[in-house]
Amino acid sequence: MIPASVKFYLASQSPRRRKLMSLLSNNFSAFSVDLDEVIYPDEDPEDVVLRLAEHKMDLAIQQAGEGIVITGDTIVVLDDEILVKPVDEEDAFHILSKLSDQSHSVYTGYSVHNKVTGKRISRFERTEVYFRKLSEHEIRDYIRGGSPMDKAGAYGIQDDYGAVFVRKIEGCYYNVVGFPLSAIYLAIKEII
Amino acid sequence: MIPASVKFYLASQSPRRRKLMSLLSNNFSAFSVDLDEVIYPDEDPEDVVLRLAEHKMDLAIQQAGEGIVITGDTIVVLDDEILVKPVDEEDAFHILSKLSDQSHSVYTGYSVHNKVTGKRISRFERTEVYFRKLSEHEIRDYIRGGSPMDKAGAYGIQDDYGAVFVRKIEGCYYNVVGFPLSAIYLAIKEII
Repeated sequence: MIPASVKFYLASQSPRRRKLMSLLSNNFSAFSVDLDEVIYPDEDPEDVVLRLAEHKMDLAIQQAGEGIVITGDTIVVLDDEILVKPVDEEDAFHILSKLSDQSHSVYTGYSVHNKVTGKRISRFERTEVYFRKLSEHEIRDYIRGGSPMDKAGAYGIQDDYGAVFVRKIEGCYYNVVGFPLSAIYLAIKEII
Repeated sequence: MIPASVKFYLASQSPRRRKLMSLLSNNFSAFSVDLDEVIYPDEDPEDVVLRLAEHKMDLAIQQAGEGIVITGDTIVVLDDEILVKPVDEEDAFHILSKLSDQSHSVYTGYSVHNKVTGKRISRFERTEVYFRKLSEHEIRDYIRGGSPMDKAGAYGIQDDYGAVFVRKIEGCYYNVVGFPLSAIYLAIKEII
């Protein structure tokens, strides 16, 4: 798919992104960059994720070796409100209650940068996710399991509960997991 | 989510369905039923998958113990043509070439049956899948890896290549993997 000789540097501490990366190549190192993810008022979702992915890239290329560097940033948007990771369990309950019986958008900004040639592509991907109506009991059970706490929008579509909360999606599934595989693969092909 | 005391019987030899089943419950036995999957000319896709899921259920309840029995059948439909598993590598190449740069429909019929009460629900789920344009080289590489051979439509959306072939979907992702988790979960809740 991608020549095994190409070395990748994935700047993400997300175990989900690392797992998805391994579908593209096993020749990669993962590390995290330290960035305070500020969101400005009235900033459009696509601008937020592109800016953060680019900002992470500016930091990541200083830490990465020679090869292809990849960064990403994911947010969830419901009725113009940006939902990030929950701060505590009550916040997770609040977020999931709002997502219930509604559709929301998942935006991921991603950046791929070839450190050898200096070529860089930064784009975003959007997927619409439709939740069925959730019971308070289901939400409490899911939070008790701990999975919502490290995830934008307080759910993982690949989780046990997350999977059965989602009625349908429109767009790239892997984008909702946190890494739009197909789009990133094509971007890599362009700069390789 | 579902009480751990509820025993499930999954009539499927698909490792993907068994893995997805484990997101709903770990209290299940899996076995396969022996059914010659005939498709009649001019039969509608939803009728095919419902009929086959029901037929599998009639056989499965004879083999299952007391509990909830689950069956499913998945087909891929492109321009009114039903695509099943490829018969050989050339057939896989032919199928994937047709799917390239097109959208197709994935239908799964499923049946859940409570052997204690006799209640049964049989329904189908449809997801639209959009492939990007594939190169002959990519298709050949994918087939060489062997993954297309046991899959309806000659691809797995959860595969390395499968994942990057798909541009977007409309509907349930897990339906494309072979088991519409959210819908089956709700059906189980209705008959439990």
